[in-house]
Amino acid sequence: MKKIAVLGSTGSIGVQTLEVVRRNKTEFDIVAIAANQSHQVMLEQILEFKPELAALQDRNSAENLRNSLGSNVDTVVLDGLDGIIKCITESGCDMVLNGMVGISGLIPTLRAIEAGKDIALANKETLVAGGQLVTDFAKKTGVNILPVDSEHSAVFQCIGRTPTPQISRLILTASGGPFRGKTSAQLKKVTPSDALKHPNWNMGKKISVDSATLMNKGLEVIEARWLFGLTPDRIDVVIHPQSIIHSMVEFIDGAVLAQLGQPDMIIPIQYALTYPERMPSGVSRYNPAETGKLEFSKPDLRTFPALGLAYDALESGGTMPAVLNGANEAAVELFLNGTLPFNSIPVVVERVMEGHKVFNNPDIDDIIYWDRWSREEAARIVKKDGGGIC
Amino acid sequence: MKKIAVLGSTGSIGVQTLEVVRRNKTEFDIVAIAANQSHQVMLEQILEFKPELAALQDRNSAENLRNSLGSNVDTVVLDGLDGIIKCITESGCDMVLNGMVGISGLIPTLRAIEAGKDIALANKETLVAGGQLVTDFAKKTGVNILPVDSEHSAVFQCIGRTPTPQISRLILTASGGPFRGKTSAQLKKVTPSDALKHPNWNMGKKISVDSATLMNKGLEVIEARWLFGLTPDRIDVVIHPQSIIHSMVEFIDGAVLAQLGQPDMIIPIQYALTYPERMPSGVSRYNPAETGKLEFSKPDLRTFPALGLAYDALESGGTMPAVLNGANEAAVELFLNGTLPFNSIPVVVERVMEGHKVFNNPDIDDIIYWDRWSREEAARIVKKDGGGIC
Repeated sequence: MKKIAVLGSTGSIGVQTLEVVRRNKTEFDIVAIAANQSHQVMLEQILEFKPELAALQDRNSAENLRNSLGSNVDTVVLDGLDGIIKCITESGCDMVLNGMVGISGLIPTLRAIEAGKDIALANKETLVAGGQLVTDFAKKTGVNILPVDSEHSAVFQCIGRTPTPQISRLILTASGGPFRGKTSAQLKKVTPSDALKHPNWNMGKKISVDSATLMNKGLEVIEARWLFGLTPDRIDVVIHPQSIIHSMVEFIDGAVLAQLGQPDMIIPIQYALTYPERMPSGVSRYNPAETGKLEFSKPDLRTFPALGLAYDALESGGTMPAVLNGANEAAVELFLNGTLPFNSIPVVVERVMEGHKVFNNPDIDDIIYWDRWSREEAARIVKKDGGGIC
Repeated sequence: MKKIAVLGSTGSIGVQTLEVVRRNKTEFDIVAIAANQSHQVMLEQILEFKPELAALQDRNSAENLRNSLGSNVDTVVLDGLDGIIKCITESGCDMVLNGMVGISGLIPTLRAIEAGKDIALANKETLVAGGQLVTDFAKKTGVNILPVDSEHSAVFQCIGRTPTPQISRLILTASGGPFRGKTSAQLKKVTPSDALKHPNWNMGKKISVDSATLMNKGLEVIEARWLFGLTPDRIDVVIHPQSIIHSMVEFIDGAVLAQLGQPDMIIPIQYALTYPERMPSGVSRYNPAETGKLEFSKPDLRTFPALGLAYDALESGGTMPAVLNGANEAAVELFLNGTLPFNSIPVVVERVMEGHKVFNNPDIDDIIYWDRWSREEAARIVKKDGGGIC
């Protein structure tokens, strides 16, 4: 039995991870779950999976959870960031699935590496903001980072055991999001609820907006750069509206491998948990003749400049990807609460990047400092310009 | 330097194999070449690659070759089947590429296995007629059989090191050949030159006709059954006119891996020679956004019954696939020389199969006997019915 700690257990990835475990109870044991503040959802998860440890970052929510649980259950409820860390270090887990959202996932990832725990990584920001730091540290300690994102899982599956010098290029596929084919002018009055209607994937709010701006794909390019050790000129993006091919890898002989399937996160989540083995998943089969054609086109960088910004941030290096990410998180939040127009998200990100002087080889304190700075800077710019940036 | 013996060096696969070697002279050394009777082509190959041994099955052609070579070259020219066998056993080769056409490739394959030589196998009939015999023998002696056919190379690449029980299904792609979308009625007056116009691949005559009848895909299903140890119910065929996806593998978790690329035999030939490594091939890149859409449909088994016959032959087992193959080779020859109408090829094959009582666990003598029988039987049926079967 593989003992698993799930961070972000009440979010989209966390809930689906528990679904994988539910279907394979003889294979996996949930020993710890952690989340931000959803104490009601976590209550049910505790009653079902009976982990040794549970943690909520928000201390009030943890107190509510303790009160609801009463004394009927053996699960110890912790709180704060230190509670989340204890879920990693004191649960006896073999593997940590990090499904936390945003930069808050970075410190738990580093602590998991320090504790020698393999990581199934769904938290993009870990690698976007701290890519070099995290991957260097994991290499030093021999910890495996297994991708959970469908694109990176696809790449990981295609690469298999092929040595990096025999890989010529990654081709990340992007659905194009809900606004594929639109012009900037058509996107002026987009509302949060428009942006949350993703055509193929059922995801959280932040990532759905990122998918609509193509920033999500940009963040994935940065992740891929660190996960697979390839320079950005060897990472391409292609629009593939059907989301059937989840990504491809081109090798030096011209052969390309692609991973395909129904757009269902169960497959990449489960593969990260079972790797290097595969197990039945219950996901419906992909039947090419019934699914119809697969289409591809180049991304429209004029309408969706966020993707280009991500490549720029990678090229600048150092703290710049953390700044890109922090500014984007802040801008998406301002969009979701109605303060910022959709088209202004990348404009704000670009302005924050323009005002940042890159700091090379950042440590965790640097990353957290510049992350906070970029958020504040984004807020300052929006406030100053009254949200009318476009 | 890997020392290679190329059987069928003057044919389509052989010539392309030598092209791979020409581009990678520091990696490979051609120590032997063998062919049927094309002594002029072989003369040039000897002068370029300077193998230790060369053989032509046809003794007169070998004599012509010896006369043309004179005493300027160290290559020893052999003849007959025993000459071909000596290219395997006495050349000091590390690997045999078997690009011979038809059932004549079977004995050399068995002798290569006996001699402990890894085989890059392009000769379909080896596995179609002698699948169980050959794969059992290879397993016993620890010889690797590396597929050269683009579909099987694709499957081989997708499987990587995944254990067989974790594979749920192979999906072989078929271009559909030059007559895709036609009805039986439209194919009544097809000429050999119509049938030889394959839309995507540049191949030999026999295989081009097989591609037009879909028998080629049927033979590939039988090959796949033995190469990958999967029962026929786990081998599907899908029509994919663009020939960009060369085949796919579905795993038990629902994930599918596909191998893609330009339709160029250089890639699978080279991969069989370099496995498990990859090397640059000079083949042009596959760029999804420029290549356009990929389409899939179900094969039309009414218009192209040959594919169904191949599944029937696998189900019958024993000598039946050898009979299918022999009858087909005879029928294709009769089509190519103008004796038999296109639509009658599968009709003849089916009649021969109907007249055959399966013999289980055949040895090499049984296979050769029933192969000859099926050819004679095909000829007899056509002669009796005056070629008017349809």
